[in-house]
Amino acid sequence: MSTEQQEHGKGGVYSSQGKEFTRDSNYITDRIVETPSAEGDHPVESGRYRLVVARACPWAHRSIIVRELLGIGEAISMGVCGPTHDADSWTFDLDPGGVDPVLGIPRLKDAYEKRFPGYPRGITVPAIVDIATGGVVTNNFPQITLDFSTQWRQFHKPGAPDLYPEELRAEMDEVMERVYTEVNNGVYRCGFAGSQESYDAAYDRLFTALDWLEARLGERRYLMGQSITEADVRLFTTLVRFDAVYHGHFKCNRNKLTEMPVLWAYARDLFQTPGFGDTVDFEQIKQHYYIVHKDLNPLQIVPKGPDESGWMTPHGRDTQG
Amino acid sequence: MSTEQQEHGKGGVYSSQGKEFTRDSNYITDRIVETPSAEGDHPVESGRYRLVVARACPWAHRSIIVRELLGIGEAISMGVCGPTHDADSWTFDLDPGGVDPVLGIPRLKDAYEKRFPGYPRGITVPAIVDIATGGVVTNNFPQITLDFSTQWRQFHKPGAPDLYPEELRAEMDEVMERVYTEVNNGVYRCGFAGSQESYDAAYDRLFTALDWLEARLGERRYLMGQSITEADVRLFTTLVRFDAVYHGHFKCNRNKLTEMPVLWAYARDLFQTPGFGDTVDFEQIKQHYYIVHKDLNPLQIVPKGPDESGWMTPHGRDTQG
Repeated sequence: MSTEQQEHGKGGVYSSQGKEFTRDSNYITDRIVETPSAEGDHPVESGRYRLVVARACPWAHRSIIVRELLGIGEAISMGVCGPTHDADSWTFDLDPGGVDPVLGIPRLKDAYEKRFPGYPRGITVPAIVDIATGGVVTNNFPQITLDFSTQWRQFHKPGAPDLYPEELRAEMDEVMERVYTEVNNGVYRCGFAGSQESYDAAYDRLFTALDWLEARLGERRYLMGQSITEADVRLFTTLVRFDAVYHGHFKCNRNKLTEMPVLWAYARDLFQTPGFGDTVDFEQIKQHYYIVHKDLNPLQIVPKGPDESGWMTPHGRDTQG
Repeated sequence: MSTEQQEHGKGGVYSSQGKEFTRDSNYITDRIVETPSAEGDHPVESGRYRLVVARACPWAHRSIIVRELLGIGEAISMGVCGPTHDADSWTFDLDPGGVDPVLGIPRLKDAYEKRFPGYPRGITVPAIVDIATGGVVTNNFPQITLDFSTQWRQFHKPGAPDLYPEELRAEMDEVMERVYTEVNNGVYRCGFAGSQESYDAAYDRLFTALDWLEARLGERRYLMGQSITEADVRLFTTLVRFDAVYHGHFKCNRNKLTEMPVLWAYARDLFQTPGFGDTVDFEQIKQHYYIVHKDLNPLQIVPKGPDESGWMTPHGRDTQG
């Protein structure tokens, strides 16, 4: 997600020289809905769309997890970009011949260009592509997962969780907003800070929020209580990358996740839940950040650490209310 | 220590593009001894010399600690360079007017040039300067501390430890050699690796050695047994920098020091011993590495973390044999 200048930095430049990092959040806001009524609404239909992701990307990772949890993989297939970029951003370099087998294109950019020739913004994942036309329908990541929950119900597997329960939405939207601005985006604010002052401020904001979460999760198993919701998915994708990339590469280093006992147990609890840990590829995650952000890591060397064996250790959260 | 090309990299370049990092260990090998007999021997004499250090530098840190432990501060004074470099390497920018109050020079390079006009190698700390002539006598850091122990005995404080006991030297030299090549220099081999392959190999070597130390120190309080020796000083200066700089900046990130229980307790035991922790300046350490190595950290942002409060927690090593 975000613009060329930022997360898809021109010539490997992602940081904001002398400034605070500000995310461009201007997306293609078309939606896929049960009952199209507004301009930009597209109909839910099994087999019509392809979700394009990269396992490395935390914003795309949300959609991978939600698709798994809801069991809608039969209705909406998934194309997977490799962890690094060429000059045109995400590519299908992991696929045989370097071409997505369904869309028949080598670069995600081709689908953006198909929809909007000369598309000027960032070529981002997740993106949903209309298979027949080959054009991107939406890359509006926060809406994509909520629509999976609310618009694709007819294709949910039996017993699928309700990840966005009506009665919790007011509080949940607040929690997710704080998680987004302070944590999901907060780590980027640290890493892409263009001055010592903006980094210092970003670091304080981030750890203030992590301390709040450490306290909140000391009192309940999941962010909203007894059940997993979209809010947990959104927090998880940042936590699972924390020690592998944000701690070192983005200098979010007051402590590792493993040093915050509640958050670490919570993250392991989710990791060990089907749909979470089995969608994590630490190697691709590390390759993405350390190779793509040349302005932060010019030698593009990818750390061997951290030791990830702790993720499968007992978390003790199942006894918690 | 080391050459311009390496630890005092030209134009901020310290890594070895495409190659393994190799330390230049060509120093000025003059010695200061009780009984001068060979060429390059200078006489021990109270007040004659000035030890020049930087609190940031691990190689200089050895000499700061040993000078404290032996109590020879009255006999040999100390000048302190700031943590960062200008184009001519270490400077006395922390001193009033930016000039060392005893040597009367702004840059350590002046003392090197005084001795050897056009001095072609790295301007390194620690260096011992003859105050009367203003020229560097030696910068041969491994010899400097051993000579403090063996040649300056008449100035040791009462009850000073024997940091280089005759009966242990054979084994101690082996231990110190391994600590030097695998740990002290091993972290630099990771950080300045110019290729993924050389980094990967360096990482494995480093953690193999740390595992060996974790086992060895499980069986004795200090590296050589019941008493602190020079070997502990040499290991300490790397360990105390581990989480602050080597873990993130040099990608030595299988785990933090705090995640190796024996080494972490051992390091705290030393830290809490007078002469060790009281000579550590985490802020200067971080500034040095993150600001000076522009090729590794182009934005020169200095991390706020890690939280260092754990260093003063009980270590439980005093009950150990």
